[in-house]
Amino acid sequence: MGPHPAVAAIRLAVRRVLHDVLTDHAPEQSPYEPAPGSRAPSGTRVPATPPLVLVACSGGADSMALASALAFEAPKLGIRAGGITVDHGLQPGSDLRAGEVVLRLTELGLRPAESVTVTVGREGGPEAAARDARYAALDGAAERHGAAAVLLGHTRDDQAETVLLGLARGSGIRSLSGMAAVSGGAGAARRYRRPFLHLDRQTARKACMVQSLPVWDDPHNADPAYTRSRLRHEGLPALEKALGKGVVEALARTAQLSRDDADALDAWAGQAEATVRDAAGLLECAKLHALPPAVRRRILRRAAIDAGAPAGSLFARHIEEVDRLITGWRGQGAINLPGKVVAQRQGGRLVIRQG
Amino acid sequence: MGPHPAVAAIRLAVRRVLHDVLTDHAPEQSPYEPAPGSRAPSGTRVPATPPLVLVACSGGADSMALASALAFEAPKLGIRAGGITVDHGLQPGSDLRAGEVVLRLTELGLRPAESVTVTVGREGGPEAAARDARYAALDGAAERHGAAAVLLGHTRDDQAETVLLGLARGSGIRSLSGMAAVSGGAGAARRYRRPFLHLDRQTARKACMVQSLPVWDDPHNADPAYTRSRLRHEGLPALEKALGKGVVEALARTAQLSRDDADALDAWAGQAEATVRDAAGLLECAKLHALPPAVRRRILRRAAIDAGAPAGSLFARHIEEVDRLITGWRGQGAINLPGKVVAQRQGGRLVIRQG
Repeated sequence: MGPHPAVAAIRLAVRRVLHDVLTDHAPEQSPYEPAPGSRAPSGTRVPATPPLVLVACSGGADSMALASALAFEAPKLGIRAGGITVDHGLQPGSDLRAGEVVLRLTELGLRPAESVTVTVGREGGPEAAARDARYAALDGAAERHGAAAVLLGHTRDDQAETVLLGLARGSGIRSLSGMAAVSGGAGAARRYRRPFLHLDRQTARKACMVQSLPVWDDPHNADPAYTRSRLRHEGLPALEKALGKGVVEALARTAQLSRDDADALDAWAGQAEATVRDAAGLLECAKLHALPPAVRRRILRRAAIDAGAPAGSLFARHIEEVDRLITGWRGQGAINLPGKVVAQRQGGRLVIRQG
Repeated sequence: MGPHPAVAAIRLAVRRVLHDVLTDHAPEQSPYEPAPGSRAPSGTRVPATPPLVLVACSGGADSMALASALAFEAPKLGIRAGGITVDHGLQPGSDLRAGEVVLRLTELGLRPAESVTVTVGREGGPEAAARDARYAALDGAAERHGAAAVLLGHTRDDQAETVLLGLARGSGIRSLSGMAAVSGGAGAARRYRRPFLHLDRQTARKACMVQSLPVWDDPHNADPAYTRSRLRHEGLPALEKALGKGVVEALARTAQLSRDDADALDAWAGQAEATVRDAAGLLECAKLHALPPAVRRRILRRAAIDAGAPAGSLFARHIEEVDRLITGWRGQGAINLPGKVVAQRQGGRLVIRQG
């Protein structure tokens, strides 16, 4: 008799990702054979160090399920498995909480199993500040231990919430593309992996239950002061009631399709950008005008950011206004953008620079 | 003292669209001067017939506001204004209802003001069938009266609902692009115009109130049996509660950005399509492989539709499976698509045809 279907599902998801990690690291280091350069002068084989994969674990159901699946699958592929929990220090007793998670990771057989304490700032709001501190800590741990990858427990439900949060910004398809299955960290291009992005939260919870893994429900997740929590407990259920049960899956699929579309259009804009500049490197309005609006606006956005406008403060309406210098020219004056950047049309050229 | 701000807003929206209609029709016919070819042989000027713009009016607040603004603005631009109401025959007394609407359109000064009775089929569900019948009737009325345009009362709120309905399909950014401000009908490329796409429903309702225009609330709009009605009365309010009041505006802006992006990618796919076929016109897998996924999948989708797959039954998962013949080739067999269309890889070529 095989494992419970939920356990089989989480293990399969992790196994697939570990295979990808091995493939990515194969050129330098294979877990089965020593790397070509590691043969000692005497002719004896020095075993290559097996790669290390870390799991980021809050103690919640998603990341505990992930930790359990990593502990089960990694040894079979010659991979070392470790776990990190981040103590955000935002609630009294969070250090004890983190200590408990370390204990559970250790019990699962993960080495290292450690807690990292961070100081959460205020920039960008409480959720963004906590996230920034968390990723900095995970980057640090990955560097310190020389980890090949860090696994994150985000599920399809998290992805659906992220898409809706992006939709609320109304800033285009890049913000609809949610979280990537593979993304970079400071110092490593493909550090973070999200094996559960196609699994639902219920499966992770079920997998913990049938494996008798105790899980911790972060009170933040149910606190209506947080946008994501309101979305999870009120917004998404109401949307499912109106549109049917497939909404979460549809949102997750939208994320993937939007990501591919946004990547393709960014690539197009990157190539087109070189063709619309004159010999002095200035943007030529007539050539910009001939491009599709979607490509032109991406070039304008990129030019504004390059000139010093902070990406997070640059909204669709700013770019639309700059675009009207090209498509609706009637002699209008300079346009002020965030970061003291100014855009103006001068003799058929578009000049965007810090004022 | 000028008109109430709500009335000023609806009139401005209509005036802008009427200007666009005049610009579109200027080459053949100007409302101010006779067209160049209309000079009678004797040398006397024959006045050009002023263009006619129709409003589609259900008697609800949105389209009654639209009718009132059209009646006010059209004469000032030398445009004739008329109105059409469609009797779907779905409720007892709908003919009396339609008669009342005609009376109100007449009182506003619209000529023609007429009711068209349609028979609603069943194809695609009750909402789609009613919509198909309605547009067929409006196309017919526009042809019969030689109308230059037909105005539709869809508001920003309708647009937000349409985006969420598209989101629930999970089929990519084209389905997020909502309704176009200008779209074609049978026999005319730019027949339909939606002047209120950037106005909220509340403004239209307010404009009716302050002009003492009686409005009719279609019971269908509040019937929870309809997806759009559930979305309007439960889904969207819950989403606004979770994400903030800007959601409707963000959804409408997402529609516009998605539309531009989808248009650009369709254009790219259309151009790339010619470059990935061999001398015999077959799709070359290696060349397809080199394209960005977003472009490649659009080419595959187009090829499946050209081969006879019905667009409405062709989902993202179908295209993904065909895509794996190119990106994940391991000798898999033919893939069955809707409409008895079969996709298979043969000697480095992708063959998609009706089986």
